[in-house]
Amino acid sequence: MSIEAAVLTEIDTPAVLVDLVVARKNIERFQQYADSHKLRVRPHIKTHKIPAIAEMQLQAGACGITCQKVSEAEAMVQGSKAITDVLITYNIVGKAKLQRLRALSEKVNLSVVADSRTVVEGLSAAFKDSRAPLAVLVECNTGANRCGVASPHEAVSLAKLIAGMPGLVFGGLMTYPPIGAEAAVEAFMREAKAGIEENGISVPVVTSGGTPSMMHAADAPVTTEYRPGTYVYNDRSLVSRGACGWEDCALTVVATVISVPAVDRAVIDAGSKTLTSDLLGLAGYGHVLGRDDIAIDQLSEEHGRLVSTGPIGLSVGDKVRIVPNHACVVTNMVDEILVVDEGGEAPERWTVAARGRLV
Amino acid sequence: MSIEAAVLTEIDTPAVLVDLVVARKNIERFQQYADSHKLRVRPHIKTHKIPAIAEMQLQAGACGITCQKVSEAEAMVQGSKAITDVLITYNIVGKAKLQRLRALSEKVNLSVVADSRTVVEGLSAAFKDSRAPLAVLVECNTGANRCGVASPHEAVSLAKLIAGMPGLVFGGLMTYPPIGAEAAVEAFMREAKAGIEENGISVPVVTSGGTPSMMHAADAPVTTEYRPGTYVYNDRSLVSRGACGWEDCALTVVATVISVPAVDRAVIDAGSKTLTSDLLGLAGYGHVLGRDDIAIDQLSEEHGRLVSTGPIGLSVGDKVRIVPNHACVVTNMVDEILVVDEGGEAPERWTVAARGRLV
Repeated sequence: MSIEAAVLTEIDTPAVLVDLVVARKNIERFQQYADSHKLRVRPHIKTHKIPAIAEMQLQAGACGITCQKVSEAEAMVQGSKAITDVLITYNIVGKAKLQRLRALSEKVNLSVVADSRTVVEGLSAAFKDSRAPLAVLVECNTGANRCGVASPHEAVSLAKLIAGMPGLVFGGLMTYPPIGAEAAVEAFMREAKAGIEENGISVPVVTSGGTPSMMHAADAPVTTEYRPGTYVYNDRSLVSRGACGWEDCALTVVATVISVPAVDRAVIDAGSKTLTSDLLGLAGYGHVLGRDDIAIDQLSEEHGRLVSTGPIGLSVGDKVRIVPNHACVVTNMVDEILVVDEGGEAPERWTVAARGRLV
Repeated sequence: MSIEAAVLTEIDTPAVLVDLVVARKNIERFQQYADSHKLRVRPHIKTHKIPAIAEMQLQAGACGITCQKVSEAEAMVQGSKAITDVLITYNIVGKAKLQRLRALSEKVNLSVVADSRTVVEGLSAAFKDSRAPLAVLVECNTGANRCGVASPHEAVSLAKLIAGMPGLVFGGLMTYPPIGAEAAVEAFMREAKAGIEENGISVPVVTSGGTPSMMHAADAPVTTEYRPGTYVYNDRSLVSRGACGWEDCALTVVATVISVPAVDRAVIDAGSKTLTSDLLGLAGYGHVLGRDDIAIDQLSEEHGRLVSTGPIGLSVGDKVRIVPNHACVVTNMVDEILVVDEGGEAPERWTVAARGRLV
């Protein structure tokens, strides 16, 4: 919100602009909450994909980072010596990925998850002759119905399997819960943890995640670690949930009006190639800062259509700043972001090092 | 459809795979239709973003290419000496872009569009001292309600303005119509063309576009040129419209099953970072080839959820091929595609040269 008009004028659009002052505040806010509840913080880097921003998170007190793919983790580790502890919250399947995982494990303290015997066996085959065992957490389905074992009972079985497998060590329990599911997380994880401990296996970590519920993380006291992602930037979906305000949104898309074909309509040079088609349950594709009367009602790849409830009052060449529905996916659309910091000088270009890392 | 299982086995996923045999057939099919109706073809490269595929289109008889952004055009021109004629169907606004446009105009036969006085004045200021004038077409709104002048009358006024501007020459009329709007295109363009000619200005080109309606392009006989994009690959949206069959889909996403958490459910390693959230009016996020019983009902960034009407019958490690809802946006998610050609040998890696070119 504090970005000067003079800064906007010089930006070639569309562009993704990040205000580091806001990002730093967002990082500190959750770190303080977590510290006060003795929760470790392990931010998911999917939101920024930039080693220098991971360093800001680590400096604030994070215990390590979370990645979703091996190639993402490689890019982050290559980009910062401060990144020494990485959890990949994904079932790693296939020879090529397992080889890369093994190579990465020799550089940093690495852990992964698994939700099936097949995944565990693949990990064991890749690590059975490694210097140090790989920590494998059991992914648990606490209601999101994506991956994860279906019951605490299954979690116990898989934990026992991991603990007995060559090259592996049981690393704990992991879940990506639906929003507001602290009670379900607590019930599932407490039962699974007790069952595993009954078998003489310790449960060093119980990790949960998700920005929308992060300020309620302590309502599931079995949790030892939390993995927020979007919190560093925030976005329209989080504002719409009341999790933050527009002033807490560190990432915006800067766009230029390229056509005003009707009194209540304008077209900007940012379409789905920048804002993406992610709706996250919302109507429209983003919020034009300072213009509550405008909806972005239609995107094609290179065009965004703005419609107002009254005269739109924009001219060809005008710049607008948009808070996207979903910050993480916007990051993945650009090779570079522009960052501004205190002082409001001309933005620097930062490479999105882990953009497009799919495998 | 002809891809061998042995080829799939070796692919690290998720990956975008293009069958050049199918793409070549798709290119030839429309070129033949256009030739038989004396229509020039100017394919939109947004679908593939690859100079070598543009060369296939030019070799089949295309008169040039269409791009949406200056940076896209730069990447295409840099990638192929065969690309000598480029239409950018976009209002170019802002000093930086106009400078790049001017530089590009010295390398190829370049034309652009405009739908307002402001855009025309910007173009003229940038080209008033250029060696050759820039051809500027008037973009017309024939019902899509995106950009474009609203009436034939306005088209005439803007054509007159362009014709009188230093550094510019009037290049014709352009529209991106809604699907099935041939009658509206014909009426608008015929009236605008007549009005412009009454002013002693010739209308060398009337260009329309869009794959869904392409086999009806000749129903608007005022049209001299057509700009299909998606036709080279096709996708689920076009199959659902009856425009083609699955066997005509040249682009598929190869994914691996990474979890089978329930008897009717599986999770693959392709999410919105590969398939995108584009729905194009469809339910679900793509079609699993050979599996009409499966819906891709939910995507997160790195996970795709497959649900079947019966037992899903997939195991962790299985590969699936998915026809995405929208091929063009998938191309933009990857730095490289894998291509297979006749013979079915191991795929080659082709760089998506114009990926992520936003400005």
